Amino acid sequence: MKKIQIYDTSLRDGTQSEDISLTNDDKLKIAHKLDELGIDFIEGGWPGSNPVDMAFFDDMKRTTLKHAKIAAFGSTHHPGFTAENDPNLRNLLSSGADVCTIFGKTWDIHATEALRIPLEQNLKIIHDSVAFLRSMGSDVVFDAEHFFDGFKTNREYALAAITAAHEAGAQTLTLCDTNGGTLPHEVTQIVQAVAKALPEARIGIHAHNDCELAVANSLAAVRAGATHIQGTINGIGERCGNANLCSIIPTLELKFDNEYTTLGRDKLALLTSTSAFVTDVANIMPFDRQPFVGRSAFAHKGGVHASAVNRNSALYEHIDPEIVGNRQRVLLTELAGRANIVNMAKKFGFHLDKDEPVVKGLLNELKKRSSMGYDYAAAEASVELLLLKKLGRRGVREFFTLKQFRVLELKEAQDKDPISEASVIVEVEGITEHTAATGRGPVNSLDNALRKALCNFYPRLSEMKLLDFKVRVMTAESPEGGGTASFVRVLVESGDHLSRWVTVGVSYNIIEASWQAVADSITYKLYKDEHEQRAQLEK
Amino acid sequence: MKKIQIYDTSLRDGTQSEDISLTNDDKLKIAHKLDELGIDFIEGGWPGSNPVDMAFFDDMKRTTLKHAKIAAFGSTHHPGFTAENDPNLRNLLSSGADVCTIFGKTWDIHATEALRIPLEQNLKIIHDSVAFLRSMGSDVVFDAEHFFDGFKTNREYALAAITAAHEAGAQTLTLCDTNGGTLPHEVTQIVQAVAKALPEARIGIHAHNDCELAVANSLAAVRAGATHIQGTINGIGERCGNANLCSIIPTLELKFDNEYTTLGRDKLALLTSTSAFVTDVANIMPFDRQPFVGRSAFAHKGGVHASAVNRNSALYEHIDPEIVGNRQRVLLTELAGRANIVNMAKKFGFHLDKDEPVVKGLLNELKKRSSMGYDYAAAEASVELLLLKKLGRRGVREFFTLKQFRVLELKEAQDKDPISEASVIVEVEGITEHTAATGRGPVNSLDNALRKALCNFYPRLSEMKLLDFKVRVMTAESPEGGGTASFVRVLVESGDHLSRWVTVGVSYNIIEASWQAVADSITYKLYKDEHEQRAQLEK
Repeated sequence: MKKIQIYDTSLRDGTQSEDISLTNDDKLKIAHKLDELGIDFIEGGWPGSNPVDMAFFDDMKRTTLKHAKIAAFGSTHHPGFTAENDPNLRNLLSSGADVCTIFGKTWDIHATEALRIPLEQNLKIIHDSVAFLRSMGSDVVFDAEHFFDGFKTNREYALAAITAAHEAGAQTLTLCDTNGGTLPHEVTQIVQAVAKALPEARIGIHAHNDCELAVANSLAAVRAGATHIQGTINGIGERCGNANLCSIIPTLELKFDNEYTTLGRDKLALLTSTSAFVTDVANIMPFDRQPFVGRSAFAHKGGVHASAVNRNSALYEHIDPEIVGNRQRVLLTELAGRANIVNMAKKFGFHLDKDEPVVKGLLNELKKRSSMGYDYAAAEASVELLLLKKLGRRGVREFFTLKQFRVLELKEAQDKDPISEASVIVEVEGITEHTAATGRGPVNSLDNALRKALCNFYPRLSEMKLLDFKVRVMTAESPEGGGTASFVRVLVESGDHLSRWVTVGVSYNIIEASWQAVADSITYKLYKDEHEQRAQLEK
Repeated sequence: MKKIQIYDTSLRDGTQSEDISLTNDDKLKIAHKLDELGIDFIEGGWPGSNPVDMAFFDDMKRTTLKHAKIAAFGSTHHPGFTAENDPNLRNLLSSGADVCTIFGKTWDIHATEALRIPLEQNLKIIHDSVAFLRSMGSDVVFDAEHFFDGFKTNREYALAAITAAHEAGAQTLTLCDTNGGTLPHEVTQIVQAVAKALPEARIGIHAHNDCELAVANSLAAVRAGATHIQGTINGIGERCGNANLCSIIPTLELKFDNEYTTLGRDKLALLTSTSAFVTDVANIMPFDRQPFVGRSAFAHKGGVHASAVNRNSALYEHIDPEIVGNRQRVLLTELAGRANIVNMAKKFGFHLDKDEPVVKGLLNELKKRSSMGYDYAAAEASVELLLLKKLGRRGVREFFTLKQFRVLELKEAQDKDPISEASVIVEVEGITEHTAATGRGPVNSLDNALRKALCNFYPRLSEMKLLDFKVRVMTAESPEGGGTASFVRVLVESGDHLSRWVTVGVSYNIIEASWQAVADSITYKLYKDEHEQRAQLEK
């Protein structure tokens, strides 16, 4: 099997998506997830272009990854500097990345019109930049910007440009379809021509999706000899996005009779969760129709299909969805599910039988609440609480009962921030507490008032911190209009010194949705503490 | 130029999308839009499968289209009937459609496992069904279901099945990749084999997007001899959708050196509006990264690209966006430069010089606010307002001044939804309005109270709708802790019958952030209306 390198640029080219902006913390989380998936190269950013990118490389210096190599992105040296004194190349080297990826001009008019330098000088810049990085001990990927358009306009010059990089020692020559306008049969012809001209070189492909052909172009390049693919998770990226690794990886692994391998087939089961993770961290809308990993990718609606799928799913599915970590959904007549619940209970330490009535009851409850927008895939702590309540197991009691809350926002002038104040009435073991607190916004005030009310009863609540708070507006699923009357889902991540957990709340009212998630989160902490104490005593 | 027939099945296969369900009225509206675009065939539904589909064909009998032919979809006759007495075929004929499209089994195991009949009988069913429809004077398209999988398993049988349809008189043999698992190079080989076996036949392609290859597979089929393409607007359809006509049509028209024609190049300018129309009528979220017609398809975010785009947009765009009715957007980000500002001002009708002090001032302001989390790449209307205020141009006045708002949330029991109430004091032209309103949550209540206060002064506000509402919590960027005290960014998308615009607000308080975005959105509507009125008067 031929190994095809997978080079992920979600953290660099992916963040050129107009709706994506990642913090350094987001980038670190995604990098670890990509490493788990088995990605070969993770392009972390353009060091020196902005402080977030530089912070990422600094943090990565202190991190050990299982498999992935970190790549830093930049350009060939500025015409006003030599390679040796170019600040951009210096930044690449000091980033500490395993690989430096630099792009250079290979389309003649880009050298003359964008860089405004003679064609010969551009070739020297490419050569010198690569040679300098190699002389400093770095591995180099050369990204041949606009290679396909360049090749079509001036074949000799485009080849001369990548030859300059090759002769200077670049390990990989990535042919970039920067504008995304190239067709698969053109990619085939051009990659074949490059492979013939530079038989020793490792050829890469970097495709954009402007004609909805980025996946096809990447596959065409591989069939013509490329062994390195650049792309992003979910195809995020500028304009129409980059080549979608979530489609390319399983297609190469599963559809070519073992001719190629990428991450290895056993890693494919992580694809769907990796895709969802990136969508979540970037806080963008998932694309349900996304191939392989989308929510609808294996959903059957047609009556004809649905019944045939039940008999033999290969009749209407091109692959088994579980291979990529996804699942079949037969809409309207959903039959699957009980096995899911049994699996989930097992994960939490309970051994249930598929035919116990509680399984059916919980399934119905989960279905009903999922259709309302409760995202139980993300909020396992909320599922666990629901499961425990249904099972009636010990330790799952009402730790507190809400009698009333009130939240007030008062803004007294156009240029003044509003004042937030919340009051809470709760009952704990027959005792009523009535507290009030201010805070940074309505949810924070409510959270503060609730903790104030509970801390006398449950002092260990002070160990618990709310770590993350995510809000998603679900316009399309809203039963009554959209806009400011939309349904809202709140995910709250909490943690103490021992663990982290995520809970969910859903309502058209963001305060109510936040309340549900915060209340679940506190209940979970209290349940968890009791459970741990009991486990201690039983020892 | 070779004419390629475009066969749209948005109204039939497209409605198999799990999030799409169309009324008869929706379908009629879309059919007229498709006819205007110049689509050759509009598949309206499966008459007899449900009442909505039958009503559509009845209405179409009374309608004259400019160009398109209407197709009715169904299957070959049931094994329990003859073609002549099959109710399904009778329904097709009585639909009054110009063309009957029937699908038949061409993968051997589908005949034996799904239909449960001998292979020979299936061939006779195909022949008799087509021959009967032809004998009744109807044109026939034969959809060869699962053709590619069938061909790979049993080449002779797959060819025998389409040969039966061809010999019975079907005008078009559409090869269907029903499960969407076929690769472009396989499509090439198989279509070439069919073209060789049946040189007289018109070959069609019907691709699904399960490997993100439906567009590539359709193009591969055309290059191998197909002259009929089935697909949908925006690629809607079951699972991962059908082949996306919005990508296929411009690619065939623009990218093959005049080798092919579809609707004719002059119709392409309607593509973006047709795509938006279908999204709107189907009431689904648009996919911003969609090639050619998406909102982001020609959006430039990177600083390097943005400045080069200003000089020569062909450097970073594979086609002129206006050819397909779309437009270029240069986004403002923290990386933005003065060139971006000049470009944006130009779009709004102001000619600025890069060196004017106002450009530098605005850039600094935008940078400062971007670092606080204002996402100006997404919220162009907020940038426009800021630009206009800085420029001090006419029409940008305070349409209203907020004196006070108050929002109250009251939850009276654990299982009761909270009550939301807001009051607003605003001043307009020296007159103070004090209003109160309830709503579905705090932001909706505030929005309702504000509109109540302003509608007497500005009645055209009733045309404006809030279309989308997005919330992002920016944990890591928050200056004081995370969790429920995090910074929050709210994006509000609004629209009227003429246009859509997005505004932004940022605060640690979600109510304040929402207020900013809603207030900007209303100001933008009022400014826009005044501007349009003045433009009318000046004519």
